Amino acid sequence: MPIKSRIRTIPHFPKYGIQYRDITTLLKDPLGLRLVVYELFKRYTGQKIDKIAAIESRGFIIAAPLAVQLGVGLVPIRKPGKLPGEKVGHDYQLEYGSDRLELHSDAIESGEKVLLVDDLLATGGTALAGIHLIEKLGGALVECAFVVDLPDVGGRRRLEGEGYSVFALCEFEGD
Amino acid sequence: MPIKSRIRTIPHFPKYGIQYRDITTLLKDPLGLRLVVYELFKRYTGQKIDKIAAIESRGFIIAAPLAVQLGVGLVPIRKPGKLPGEKVGHDYQLEYGSDRLELHSDAIESGEKVLLVDDLLATGGTALAGIHLIEKLGGALVECAFVVDLPDVGGRRRLEGEGYSVFALCEFEGD
Repeated sequence: MPIKSRIRTIPHFPKYGIQYRDITTLLKDPLGLRLVVYELFKRYTGQKIDKIAAIESRGFIIAAPLAVQLGVGLVPIRKPGKLPGEKVGHDYQLEYGSDRLELHSDAIESGEKVLLVDDLLATGGTALAGIHLIEKLGGALVECAFVVDLPDVGGRRRLEGEGYSVFALCEFEGD
Repeated sequence: MPIKSRIRTIPHFPKYGIQYRDITTLLKDPLGLRLVVYELFKRYTGQKIDKIAAIESRGFIIAAPLAVQLGVGLVPIRKPGKLPGEKVGHDYQLEYGSDRLELHSDAIESGEKVLLVDDLLATGGTALAGIHLIEKLGGALVECAFVVDLPDVGGRRRLEGEGYSVFALCEFEGD
């Protein structure tokens, strides 16, 4: 597992009881970063994909080289106040409080096939908000791609339960 | 100017009087994103570079594909509270108030040659903070690379005045 073994676990970050899966040790290794991009490229090359939607901000690191390899455009899904143009937004619930993601209105054209990319799948709340934004603009989700899936947190179950396809390069159980 | 012409200007963002240079129109064009990476790759291939340090968060989008093409590791320079491991920090002044950037202590080894990448050079304050972090860990800056330089804001002058090399793919004057 040359990808999983390069991911470091930091206990109790950002709060007590959380096992933080830290991909910075994967990214700083030239082979690690290349493997991630190569494995995702292998899965998606030859598929009909018009755009990659990348979730701020670690998602950018995975999505951008994949977009270059696949020869498709990249559109960033960002926190409120970051995108300067006309945009759509989606509010979603967190464990405590709520959050919001935004996407430029001209980022995706109706009917385009969009791959959503982020680094890690936990509850799936962020990914679902991203999917809603893509669909608001008439885009069709191809799949959600992650480096890490935490299956015990339930995001994959939730996304698949709503009919969306999920792919992850590795899993950490027991979270 | 196939890169500059793909960058959109949004007037009065994030506040009145600012001409915001929006690279999202460049990134969503598959050729635009590839051109950026290709032009940077042309400049740095063959140079001795050990790591690319990417400034959160639009810097990630430019730095990650360049790191893959050059076959070097990527280390993220982030806002406070984002990096989970042991880290170094640097506080710097903004027009109003101050800000801080952080870098994992094990991101760079002493003597490594580091290319700093961000999307846009304005005052140079963020880039200088990034350079200080690289140097705190014993890294040697190769150059600061940007997609956009706003020469009238003075960042290039400031960085070059401190002895650092600057490269940008395009310039917007009059800011």
